[in-house]
Amino acid sequence: MFVNLEHLGLAVQDLQSATELYTKLLGVAPYKHEHVPSEAVDTVFFRVGGAKVELLAGTSPDSAITKYLSKKGEGIHHVAFEVADIRAEMLRLREEGFVLLNDEPKLGADNKLVCFVHPKSAAGVLVELCQEILKP
Amino acid sequence: MFVNLEHLGLAVQDLQSATELYTKLLGVAPYKHEHVPSEAVDTVFFRVGGAKVELLAGTSPDSAITKYLSKKGEGIHHVAFEVADIRAEMLRLREEGFVLLNDEPKLGADNKLVCFVHPKSAAGVLVELCQEILKP
Repeated sequence: MFVNLEHLGLAVQDLQSATELYTKLLGVAPYKHEHVPSEAVDTVFFRVGGAKVELLAGTSPDSAITKYLSKKGEGIHHVAFEVADIRAEMLRLREEGFVLLNDEPKLGADNKLVCFVHPKSAAGVLVELCQEILKP
Repeated sequence: MFVNLEHLGLAVQDLQSATELYTKLLGVAPYKHEHVPSEAVDTVFFRVGGAKVELLAGTSPDSAITKYLSKKGEGIHHVAFEVADIRAEMLRLREEGFVLLNDEPKLGADNKLVCFVHPKSAAGVLVELCQEILKP
């Protein structure tokens, strides 16, 4: 089950200037800055009501974000939906014919298990499923 | 004040097939189909938690969505934030140096007053501000 639109991921060239810009635009300061080594990205998170805006900058030429920027430029990179049970949702979507970019959920930013749906499966949209990792 | 991430707008080629696809993906049926003559678009809305997903298809060659599709293809077209007072927010953003695409709020889909921020002002993202029109 899709519970919420959890966040919107924006690919940016310069994290510092984009953070200043979005602080002005949204009228709120970011609540978190997190480096995600597995994705080679630096991220900054803003909270707007029940959703978040995540700024993403690549930290290596191999980062998916760096490649995206060189191909498409800055803009909305992905949308993430919170799901109640990520493995059940992955199974359901595969059975519905959607192509997933991960075989298993992987560790994402902001204490989440994540999985991506191929944009070719979703009318050109990179869709992330995410589920909070509960701490014991 | 930005109150919430109100909806995400997706540009699609074929509204009927995209509606079927997103009904499967999100696991929920749309709650509304609305034609917006002022924008020359047909829209379909899904609710996911506190936010909405809006599918947009152009209804004329002059529609901004038709032009977007021919230039960039299907994908995420804009993000809309609900604001408490759209005129106050437009004034604040102009003073902060953001370029707005409207001088005055205009009538959008889903019973809203809307205004757009130029993507060049917002790191490549077309940002919509929206405010519900209160009925007496």
